[in-house]
Amino acid sequence: MKFAKFFPILKWGRGYSRQTLENDLVAAVIVTIMLIPQSLAYALLAGLPAQVGLYASIAPLVIYAVFGTSRTLAVGPVAVASLMTAAAVGQLAAQGTPEYLGAAIALAFLSGLMLLLMGFLRLGFLANFLSHPVISGFITASGIIIAASQLRHLLGVPGEGHNLLELLGSLWANLDKINLPTLVIGVFATSFLFWSRRSLKKLLLARGTKPRIADILSKSAPIAAVAATTLATWLFGLSGAGVAIVGEIPSGLPMPTLPPFDLALWTQIATPALLISIVGYVETISVAQTLAAKRRQRIDPDQELIALGAANVGAAMSGGLPVTGGFARSVVNFDAGAETPAAGAFTAIGIAGAALFLTPLLFFLPKATLAATIIVAVLSLVDVGALRRSWRYSRGDFAAMLATILVTLGTGVETGIIAGVGVSVFLHLYRTSRPHYAVVGQVPGTEHFRNINRHEVVVSPAIYSIRIDESLYFPNARFIEDRINAAIAQNPAIKHVVLVCPAVNFIDLSALESLEAVNTRLKEAGIQLHLSEVKGPVMDRLKRSHFLHDLGGQVFLTQYDAIRTLDGECARAALEARRCS
Amino acid sequence: MKFAKFFPILKWGRGYSRQTLENDLVAAVIVTIMLIPQSLAYALLAGLPAQVGLYASIAPLVIYAVFGTSRTLAVGPVAVASLMTAAAVGQLAAQGTPEYLGAAIALAFLSGLMLLLMGFLRLGFLANFLSHPVISGFITASGIIIAASQLRHLLGVPGEGHNLLELLGSLWANLDKINLPTLVIGVFATSFLFWSRRSLKKLLLARGTKPRIADILSKSAPIAAVAATTLATWLFGLSGAGVAIVGEIPSGLPMPTLPPFDLALWTQIATPALLISIVGYVETISVAQTLAAKRRQRIDPDQELIALGAANVGAAMSGGLPVTGGFARSVVNFDAGAETPAAGAFTAIGIAGAALFLTPLLFFLPKATLAATIIVAVLSLVDVGALRRSWRYSRGDFAAMLATILVTLGTGVETGIIAGVGVSVFLHLYRTSRPHYAVVGQVPGTEHFRNINRHEVVVSPAIYSIRIDESLYFPNARFIEDRINAAIAQNPAIKHVVLVCPAVNFIDLSALESLEAVNTRLKEAGIQLHLSEVKGPVMDRLKRSHFLHDLGGQVFLTQYDAIRTLDGECARAALEARRCS
Repeated sequence: MKFAKFFPILKWGRGYSRQTLENDLVAAVIVTIMLIPQSLAYALLAGLPAQVGLYASIAPLVIYAVFGTSRTLAVGPVAVASLMTAAAVGQLAAQGTPEYLGAAIALAFLSGLMLLLMGFLRLGFLANFLSHPVISGFITASGIIIAASQLRHLLGVPGEGHNLLELLGSLWANLDKINLPTLVIGVFATSFLFWSRRSLKKLLLARGTKPRIADILSKSAPIAAVAATTLATWLFGLSGAGVAIVGEIPSGLPMPTLPPFDLALWTQIATPALLISIVGYVETISVAQTLAAKRRQRIDPDQELIALGAANVGAAMSGGLPVTGGFARSVVNFDAGAETPAAGAFTAIGIAGAALFLTPLLFFLPKATLAATIIVAVLSLVDVGALRRSWRYSRGDFAAMLATILVTLGTGVETGIIAGVGVSVFLHLYRTSRPHYAVVGQVPGTEHFRNINRHEVVVSPAIYSIRIDESLYFPNARFIEDRINAAIAQNPAIKHVVLVCPAVNFIDLSALESLEAVNTRLKEAGIQLHLSEVKGPVMDRLKRSHFLHDLGGQVFLTQYDAIRTLDGECARAALEARRCS
Repeated sequence: MKFAKFFPILKWGRGYSRQTLENDLVAAVIVTIMLIPQSLAYALLAGLPAQVGLYASIAPLVIYAVFGTSRTLAVGPVAVASLMTAAAVGQLAAQGTPEYLGAAIALAFLSGLMLLLMGFLRLGFLANFLSHPVISGFITASGIIIAASQLRHLLGVPGEGHNLLELLGSLWANLDKINLPTLVIGVFATSFLFWSRRSLKKLLLARGTKPRIADILSKSAPIAAVAATTLATWLFGLSGAGVAIVGEIPSGLPMPTLPPFDLALWTQIATPALLISIVGYVETISVAQTLAAKRRQRIDPDQELIALGAANVGAAMSGGLPVTGGFARSVVNFDAGAETPAAGAFTAIGIAGAALFLTPLLFFLPKATLAATIIVAVLSLVDVGALRRSWRYSRGDFAAMLATILVTLGTGVETGIIAGVGVSVFLHLYRTSRPHYAVVGQVPGTEHFRNINRHEVVVSPAIYSIRIDESLYFPNARFIEDRINAAIAQNPAIKHVVLVCPAVNFIDLSALESLEAVNTRLKEAGIQLHLSEVKGPVMDRLKRSHFLHDLGGQVFLTQYDAIRTLDGECARAALEARRCS
C-alpha cells in the first residue's frame, strides 16, 4: 500500500481501456502541436539552445506520468521558470558557453532534489508562504518582463536586461537599429497569433467545421505561423537581410547528462533553485487542483512534490532546463479530452519525433516568430485587475502585491519574489501586533457580553473586562501589556482585570512572560488578574507553566461566571436590565 | 503640550526638591564608582581605546536625562552592544586604526538616527519581532562569547575570534604562552569580584555597618580591585614581566566629533546598526518598564526610542560607542534611591571628573582586571534555566531559543540574532499553517456546539460543520481547502458544509480566494457552503468582495440557526436530546 502510494500509475493504469487510449492520443496530438514552438521559444527565453526546450518536454513528461497524481497536468518548460533560469544562470556565465548550459542543468537538478526532499519530509506547506497576492503579482510582473524581453526579437535590435528598466533602456538605446524585415515578420506573427487565439475557433465553428477539428486547427495556429515565416525567410533569403534565425538544431534524442558537481556553483544557485522549486510547485498544484476538482478527482500535494521533483531531476539528466506544470498546456490537455497521464507520455513521444526528424526544417525559423509565440502566451498571465480587486478587499494584500510587482519589474525576479514574501510576512506580523480588542460589558437581560463601544451594555466600575480577538504571541505580547497598563493608570476604581479569551487560540512563551509581568504588577497594585473562557488546548498548556499558580485572580469558565463572582450585584442588575453603579 | 511630550524633563523638573537632590546625588556616587571600571572594560571589549568608554558615559547620560521617560534608567556602554560593535567594525578595519574608531562612531551615529526615525514614525512595534526566547537566548549566548573573549586577557595569551569556536580554538592554540603574573592577577581579581558580589554586603551588614555604607562599599569592590592590581603592577614592575596594562589614557573631556560621511561605509554598517538599535531598544524598554512598574510610573515606548536615539547620536558626537539602557547599572541606580534622571546627569559629572583627573592613575591598570570585571558582569546574563523552562512550555519557543544560542555561539552575534528571528517567524507561520480545527455537533438539550471528538453531540449526516480556531490567511489558506475537499470525498451524504467562524478574526485575500475556490467546487458537486458566527469586522470586509454574492449557501448569525434552517428536524431532535438519523 505504502509503496503504491508513490506510484499512482499503478492505480489508473489498471483500468486503462481502449476508449481511454483514444482520448489520450487525441489530446497528445493537440498538446504536441502546441508544445513544439513553445518548447523552442522557452529554451531561447532561458538563454539555452533551442533543442534543450524539446528535450525538457520528453523525459519529464514520462516521469510525471509515473509519479503524478493529477490526471491531466502537462509539465514542461514554462515562461516564468525559464525567465528565472535566465536570471539565475545569467549571473554566473555567458550565454552560449558550456558553463551556462551546465549551470542551467545544475539548477534543474538541484531544484528537483529540493522538491523530492520537500516531498519526502512532507514540507508542502512551504508553498503557503507565497500568498496569493504575491504569486499573482509575481506572475503579472514576470509576464511583463518576458514580453519586454521579447520585443527586441520582434524589432531585430540587440539588447538585454533582467528587469523592465534595463530592458526598456536597452531597447530605447537601440531603436535606430530596427530591422525592417524582422519587424514585418514579428508584427505579422504576433497579430496572427492574437487573432487566431481570439477568433479562429469561432470562425471555423461558424463555417460548420466539426468542434474537434476546429479545436485542433486553432491550436495549430502557432505551428502554422512557424511554418509560414520559416518558408518566407527561406524563399526570400531574409536571413541575409538581417532576420535572425534559429539556425542549426542538432537532430536526435537527448543524451544522458550529469550536472556539474561543483560545490561553489551549487551554493550560488541554491537560492534561485529554491525559488524556482516553490514557484513551480505553487503553479503546478494550483493548476492540478483546479482541473482535478472539475472531475472530482483528488490531488495529493506531497506526492506532487515528488512527481515534480523527479520530473526536474529527469529534465536535468536529459540535458534540459527546469520544468513546471504549465497552466495553458494543462488546460489544453484537459479540454482536448485527456483522461490519464498516459496522454503526457504520448506527448513526449510526439516531441521526441520532432527532435528526431523536424529540426532540419527549423533552420530558417525566425526568432521573431518564437518571440511572438512567447508574447502572446505571457500576456495572458498579466492580470492588472487583480490589483484593483485586492485594493478593494484589503490594503495589506494590495501592498504585498504592489511591492512584488514593482520590485520584480524594477530589479528582477529573485528580489521581487523575496520582497513579496517579506512584505506579506511583515504585514501579517504587523497586523497581529495590533490585534483587534474590545472592552466588554454585559448585554442587559442576557448572559452575553459585547463591545462597550458597539452595544448598550452594563459594566461594573471595579471590573475591567478586555477581550483580545487574536492569539497571544510575540508580535502582540507587548501590546497587551501596554493596553492593560494604560487602562489601570487611567481608572483608579479598577479592582479586577478580566482577560476574556474565547478568540485566543494560542499563548506563546513571549505572551506568557508578558502576562506574568502584568500579573505581578497588578498584584503589587492590589488588583487581581482573571481569565475567562479559556480554550481547552490553551488551558492545557498554561498548566505546564507557573502562571496559574502565581495568578492573582481566578480562571472562569464563562465571562458571566466571572462577573457573577466578582460583582454579584452588578451581574444581577444587568440581568434585570438596570445600570449597576 | 505636544512639545512638552518630547521633553519629559519639563515634567519631573518642576517638582524637584532638596530631598530629591540628595537622593539623586547618593545614587550618582554609587553608579559612578560602578561605571568607571565598566566603561573602560566595555571600550576594550569593543576594541576601542579605554577613554572612549568614559566618553560614552558622559554626554549620553545628560541627553537621556532630558528626553527619557524612565526615572531611573542608566544608559551607557553595555556588554552585548559592545560585543556587537566589535563584531561589526572588526569586519571593516583593524583595531587601533583611525578607520576602526571612525566606523564605531558611524555605527553609534547611524543606530541613533535609526532609533530617532523609528521614534518619530512610531515604529516601536519593530521590537516585537524579537520574541522573548530569541532575546533570552541571544543574551545568554552573547554572555558566553564575551566571557570566552576575555579569557585570553586573564591568561595573558594572544587570540581573537567572533564566535565561541574561534575563541576557544585560538585559546587552545596559545595555551603554551600563558603569562603567570597575568594569570595570578586575573584569578585574584575574578575571585575577589565574585566573592564581593555574593558575600561582601552580607558580611558588612553582619558586622554592623550601616546599610547605605555597606551598599556603597560592596559596589566599590571593582574599583578596589582596580586600585589593588594597578598598585601591585606598579610596585612590582609587573608590566616588565609580561602583564598587559592599559597604558596611557589621554586626560580631558571628549572633543565634539562627526562620524565619517562615507556612503559605502554606511551601507556596510546598516544591518549591524539596525540590529544594535533593536537589541538595545528591547533591553532598554524591558529594564525601564520593570523599574517603572515597581513605582507605578509610566514609560512611553515611542519617546524611549527618541531618548535612546538622541543618546546614541550624542555618544557618536562625543567620540564614543553605541549606548543602551543597561540592566545592572539601572537596578543599582534604582536601589541606591535615584528618583529622577538628574541622577544620571550627576553620574555624568562624576565620570567627566574621572576622565579629567583619574586617567594618569590608570596607566598600570592590568587588562586582566578589566577582563575580570567583564566576566563577572556577563556571567549573570547567562540563563541556561530559560532553556529548560521554554522546553516545558512550548517546543516551538524552545527551538527558537536553541537556534539563537547555537547560531550565535557558532557563527557570531549578527547571524545569531537573524537566525533567531527567522526561526521564530517561521515557526509561527508553520504553527498557524496547521490550525486547530474541530468538526462540531450540537450538545443535546442545548443550543451549544462542541467538538465531536471531545463531547457527546448530535450531528446531522447531511451537514458537515467545521470550526477553524484561527484566522484564515495565507499560511493556512490551502489547509482549509484540503480539509474540506477530503471531508467531501469521504462522506457522500454531505449536502451542506458550514464553516463556523467565532475564532476567525481575519480573512485575508489568499484565504478569500481559497474559500471562493471551495465554494465553486462545492456548488458544482451540488453541495452548499455556509458560514456561521462570523465576526463583525470580518463580515464588513467580506461585503467588500464578491464572495457573499457568489456563496452557494447562507451566512447564519449562530450555528444553531444554521442547523435549524438546514435540518430543522435534527435541531429539534437534538434539543430533545435524541439522535437524528
